[in-house]
Amino acid sequence: MTEVSKPYIYLDHAATSWPKPPAVTEAVMKAMLHDAANPGRGSHAMAVRASRILFDTRKHIAKLFNIRNPNDIAFTSNTTMSLNMAIKGWVKPGDHVIATSVEHNSVRRPLYYLEHQMQLEVSYIESDAAGKIKVENVENAIQSNTTLIIVNHSSNLLGTILPVAEIGALAKKHGVKLLVDAAQSAGIIPVDVQGMGIHMLAFPGHKGLLGPQGTGGLYIAPDMELEPLLHGGTGSQSEAPHQPLVRPDRYEAGTQNTPGLAGLLEGVKHVAMQGVDNIYEHEWGLTQRLMEGLCEVQGVHLLGPPRGEARTGIVALHIDGIDPSELSFILDQHYQIAVRAGFHCTPLAHAAAGTSSTGAVRASVGASTTADEVDAFVLAIKEIREQYRI
Amino acid sequence: MTEVSKPYIYLDHAATSWPKPPAVTEAVMKAMLHDAANPGRGSHAMAVRASRILFDTRKHIAKLFNIRNPNDIAFTSNTTMSLNMAIKGWVKPGDHVIATSVEHNSVRRPLYYLEHQMQLEVSYIESDAAGKIKVENVENAIQSNTTLIIVNHSSNLLGTILPVAEIGALAKKHGVKLLVDAAQSAGIIPVDVQGMGIHMLAFPGHKGLLGPQGTGGLYIAPDMELEPLLHGGTGSQSEAPHQPLVRPDRYEAGTQNTPGLAGLLEGVKHVAMQGVDNIYEHEWGLTQRLMEGLCEVQGVHLLGPPRGEARTGIVALHIDGIDPSELSFILDQHYQIAVRAGFHCTPLAHAAAGTSSTGAVRASVGASTTADEVDAFVLAIKEIREQYRI
Repeated sequence: MTEVSKPYIYLDHAATSWPKPPAVTEAVMKAMLHDAANPGRGSHAMAVRASRILFDTRKHIAKLFNIRNPNDIAFTSNTTMSLNMAIKGWVKPGDHVIATSVEHNSVRRPLYYLEHQMQLEVSYIESDAAGKIKVENVENAIQSNTTLIIVNHSSNLLGTILPVAEIGALAKKHGVKLLVDAAQSAGIIPVDVQGMGIHMLAFPGHKGLLGPQGTGGLYIAPDMELEPLLHGGTGSQSEAPHQPLVRPDRYEAGTQNTPGLAGLLEGVKHVAMQGVDNIYEHEWGLTQRLMEGLCEVQGVHLLGPPRGEARTGIVALHIDGIDPSELSFILDQHYQIAVRAGFHCTPLAHAAAGTSSTGAVRASVGASTTADEVDAFVLAIKEIREQYRI
Repeated sequence: MTEVSKPYIYLDHAATSWPKPPAVTEAVMKAMLHDAANPGRGSHAMAVRASRILFDTRKHIAKLFNIRNPNDIAFTSNTTMSLNMAIKGWVKPGDHVIATSVEHNSVRRPLYYLEHQMQLEVSYIESDAAGKIKVENVENAIQSNTTLIIVNHSSNLLGTILPVAEIGALAKKHGVKLLVDAAQSAGIIPVDVQGMGIHMLAFPGHKGLLGPQGTGGLYIAPDMELEPLLHGGTGSQSEAPHQPLVRPDRYEAGTQNTPGLAGLLEGVKHVAMQGVDNIYEHEWGLTQRLMEGLCEVQGVHLLGPPRGEARTGIVALHIDGIDPSELSFILDQHYQIAVRAGFHCTPLAHAAAGTSSTGAVRASVGASTTADEVDAFVLAIKEIREQYRI
């Protein structure tokens, strides 16, 4: 019953991973059928089992990211919510924030809002066309009122991996907090919050961690105190009119997504069993295969770092004379290949890559993608290119 | 595989409904296996199917609540998020807000925060011991700077049903917006946003609507404009640094919980098929049966409206000389009956009911609760009472 039919070749893992490991779907179902009372809101057996699921999920995520105390992780519904919680909960009027031009709109739009709402000052460190930034440019941008550096661990358009550990060292040196957007890196490249000097880590549950949609989280370093994004019931200190300080309650008002988190637990276990290094090697190998297959094809332009260099499982491209939306439509309709077309919620990265007017087609592989699937994609692109040339 | 084992008598429906109709669990599973691409973020067949699920869910909820345009519903992860979105997105410094003393902490805590953060002025209309308020007291509390009235449709401690339509008429007369917390009413008592004059309706997916945890929503009247709680990617107007105005995108940044919403769709269909009036009648009948069974038992005190009066499926009680936590523990361990004990995230309602120091045990029935289950609960309470008397 949890077997997946694979009607087509799914190369949209950067949007959400699919298929999920069978254990993920089974765990969601089991939780819904047997355990999904309201965790932390009752002491009956089922509510206790629900609390246990949340506890176990927190523990396994903590281990994966080298987080000392699992209670420093707050669950959210997606990375966007995590990033909003981190940014809006930390910055104050008059602060200065540094971010990069490869940030997703889930960083850029909160910052833009705060620039106008509370005179936040923001500097964007420009990347080159491949999405790389110079660490010294980050350091040079630090001002006396800089309170936060935000870095996208891997660009969702270009696949570029940013030097988080180096920026972490620099943040530490200057006493500035570092927020990392791990939307494209969690479960795909190693993340070590202690080793990398990360103060806040925003991550999705439904991408590289292979959990269900509707899950995500934010790690908040124990010495940081955020104003919560959500104020409300926590099942604890019920009589207090303010949000309790105790974690994770402080940042988790309202009923949690127990079935989703039960699935995420299995996803994280799957990732840990496979090993993040192995997953990275697998995905990197596939991107290289994809790029090799297409690099000689005239009129096909690949975005992001050149072959041989580090990148996550993302290869975006555009073809002279073919609109990306049309290309993705043909891939879907005639080849049963799923990719994402158009603009990818990261306008400054498009600008850097020179695709602000054209957009791009993004193929993204995942832990379950095979070499055959990549070859089929390469062949399809070649055929389409051939037909359009005629 | 989606059959539910019923290990015990579940009387905690006010926290979350359980078991869900089999179609709900099946739909979640089906979506995870076949449809859960990222809706609105790709044009491939699976992403289109995911978008379709969201569209259908919105449409069915709109019909249930008499909402004209389904796009005026924004999905959230729970009622707390909906209420935070409504309150923080609407009020401005210097505003005055009216709420009631039976509000949940998901209203009280955001208001308390804003009182201190932006000098928001708040008046709480006091209820009597049964949770009832006088509508004239609401009207008398309106000031020239009142911009919002917040009403809990039904108290999560007392089951009392508040006169939303009357308050809606009054809000309209004075040009003030009305926000209704439907955590305990959606799917259980009729909600008609047009007929009742509701400008914003915050509702859970996982209680009376019988959907999975991790789902909820906020209806926002078409003539209202909120500052979004979450800024981020919407898949639309990707190049704009501000949140797009178009609905529902404006209020739905980030990846949505497609499997959860697929389940919610089936939950809402189930509710519509049963009929909200019938569900209310069923639950009301059970509460009356429960109250009749216990009203003569010495030392047992029932909270909320007296027998014969309207209430949702909630009956809270306390017993002289027995700590509520101990009572719920005995019910769980010896009788396999799940209730919620202690304080219920609504301190002012506890104060009104005189249970601020004792707390209470809350039994709450749902659409699937049977008379036999209620009888078993009554018998258990009598037995426990008998043993404690000796």
